[in-house]
Amino acid sequence: MRQVYIVGTGQTPVAEHWERTATSLATEALTSALGQISPERVGAIYVGNALGGALQVQSQLGAAIAAAAGLRCVEAYTLEAGGASGGVALRQAYLSIVSGAHELVAVVGVEKVTDVLDGALEAALALAGDADWEAIHGTTLTAQWAMLMRRYLYQYGYDAADFAPFPVNAHANGTANPDALYRFPITVDKVRSATMVADPLGMLDCSTVADGAAVLLLASEAIARELPGPHIRIAGSAVATDTLALHSRPDPLWLAAAARSASAAFGAAKLAVGDIDVLELTDLHGIVATLALEACGFAERGTGVQLAREGAIGIGGTTPLATRGGSKARGDTVGANGVYQVIDLVLQLRGAAGKVQVPEARVALAQCLGGIGATAATHILVAD
Amino acid sequence: MRQVYIVGTGQTPVAEHWERTATSLATEALTSALGQISPERVGAIYVGNALGGALQVQSQLGAAIAAAAGLRCVEAYTLEAGGASGGVALRQAYLSIVSGAHELVAVVGVEKVTDVLDGALEAALALAGDADWEAIHGTTLTAQWAMLMRRYLYQYGYDAADFAPFPVNAHANGTANPDALYRFPITVDKVRSATMVADPLGMLDCSTVADGAAVLLLASEAIARELPGPHIRIAGSAVATDTLALHSRPDPLWLAAAARSASAAFGAAKLAVGDIDVLELTDLHGIVATLALEACGFAERGTGVQLAREGAIGIGGTTPLATRGGSKARGDTVGANGVYQVIDLVLQLRGAAGKVQVPEARVALAQCLGGIGATAATHILVAD
Repeated sequence: MRQVYIVGTGQTPVAEHWERTATSLATEALTSALGQISPERVGAIYVGNALGGALQVQSQLGAAIAAAAGLRCVEAYTLEAGGASGGVALRQAYLSIVSGAHELVAVVGVEKVTDVLDGALEAALALAGDADWEAIHGTTLTAQWAMLMRRYLYQYGYDAADFAPFPVNAHANGTANPDALYRFPITVDKVRSATMVADPLGMLDCSTVADGAAVLLLASEAIARELPGPHIRIAGSAVATDTLALHSRPDPLWLAAAARSASAAFGAAKLAVGDIDVLELTDLHGIVATLALEACGFAERGTGVQLAREGAIGIGGTTPLATRGGSKARGDTVGANGVYQVIDLVLQLRGAAGKVQVPEARVALAQCLGGIGATAATHILVAD
Repeated sequence: MRQVYIVGTGQTPVAEHWERTATSLATEALTSALGQISPERVGAIYVGNALGGALQVQSQLGAAIAAAAGLRCVEAYTLEAGGASGGVALRQAYLSIVSGAHELVAVVGVEKVTDVLDGALEAALALAGDADWEAIHGTTLTAQWAMLMRRYLYQYGYDAADFAPFPVNAHANGTANPDALYRFPITVDKVRSATMVADPLGMLDCSTVADGAAVLLLASEAIARELPGPHIRIAGSAVATDTLALHSRPDPLWLAAAARSASAAFGAAKLAVGDIDVLELTDLHGIVATLALEACGFAERGTGVQLAREGAIGIGGTTPLATRGGSKARGDTVGANGVYQVIDLVLQLRGAAGKVQVPEARVALAQCLGGIGATAATHILVAD
């Protein structure tokens, strides 16, 4: 099978870019990723975007971004899977190189969520839930994660404060990321005393949606050899799905899509949980990261939250998480999250993460989720 | 390179399915396509859909359809490119088999456009145009095609009546398609005397948007050999893009994405225009089909409309078009069109098209366009 390498990255700061369009943000990140590489060498563009149609009244972003970035007529796609959009775009871009159709392709994760009415934003985010059984009753994704957290607290006997180390770790790491939305530390006390959003999720248990674009350039081995390194190899790539509606799942605390895609990615990479030096998960709330840690096999059922409490998710821990701020401090860019995650891990695997560098990081895992984990994309990256 | 075969098809009638959701239509078509094949054998689902988020308040259709069809946890995607959504989904599904990632995958084209307010529908369809320069001024896609037709009439000296044979041919063929939206013939006189919609496009020059779902099963050669035939080989597959906004194109009457994707598909298939026995193009209006015929190389610039006037697009002609009604009589199912097109051609290549059978049809071309031709997907099919 043809090997696929990440040979370039680019991103905009995560922020409220009121004056920008999704296309303009994506073009900036794409131009930055290309650097000295001629745009004509790009064979295809895979755009991951969740809300362009709903909030930007612009669909066909693949074609729009291709043209705006000066790649007129190039093959271009838009993939949508809520918060997993960036991850599924990466998977398809990866397959396009494995298939032999292309030698160099760009993965663009982009989201523009500000400069819209608050109600429109909440409604747009709820599109990734089940329209007929959840969204129609006003059930937001945040409300559903809160219900899962409540169930977790009840079933395993934890306290809401046990989840506070997730946002605290994310903010601590985010201070080192100049592109992060929030670059200040927070404390467990501050998390617990924050205004309640959806009980038991307080304001500081919740990520903030913001605008941003992130780009990865993928290349075949032959092209990667030509370009300046170090390059990072995609050793495993997998996507899986689950029901949109929580009530359709036999066990709501088990993220089946996350489990299945992680297991498939590990299988493809011929690696196991113990090989992972650093990781990025969907960590919109501590409960999401907890359930993902369990689904991926980093912790037994009912023990994921202990990895945060015991400091294992810190830079010096066994499962360093959100090393550049995660979605909590970097900001939740919805369809772009999956690409920002991989860029953060590439920085780690290149040994270029500065004061948040995980020592001797050689193997990394990125996983992003759409809706309440209805789509999961998992990638395993290796510094050869 | 691994060969890819179409081993199954399924579709719902194109109609106003007020009581159905997109997921329910897709599940019906998928179940019908699978027939005796166990759902567990499907490795991935590629959904082409343009308006789920905008009109159905449901995104993540890949996961939704997978679960509804009993394929819980399967790899699933949603691709969006306006009216080209079905074609780009087919292209990615094709590449997933070429890459070796899968042996059997499903391509689902689905659209649900009825049971919404008329204004919402027009606005949703305009998402595929340029939001900043076109849609914001109220410019619909129909209005833009009308402007291109006016320009064509002026530049080449035709009369609007010269385009009438396109819908007349489509309706004549649609009478034989039990799943078509319209199953009655129309005349050139009727076309020309119809109520004006966007001068020079009258009501019968315009396709009608309607609901429907269509499914293709693609398989590797090994799996295709196991299953009952005849199977149709995908000999060429290509996608290209152009600017969203008409005013950004150096020559508005030249559909550059259509030209580039057709040329790439012909190159991959090692075939030429003269080899095509039957074809499906985006034929929302005669002007669209005319410009596509020219871009694909079936006619010189300024002469595409003559193929209709001279009867070449009829069943007995040199370029039989819309043999099952095209988007005019079959109905415009937006993101599903690209899949319905291919099913219609598979029927021709299997010699199963009954009274609209093109004699000795062995090679076919399907092309679908998104927006004003901003995305184009072209596939060449061969009965081996």
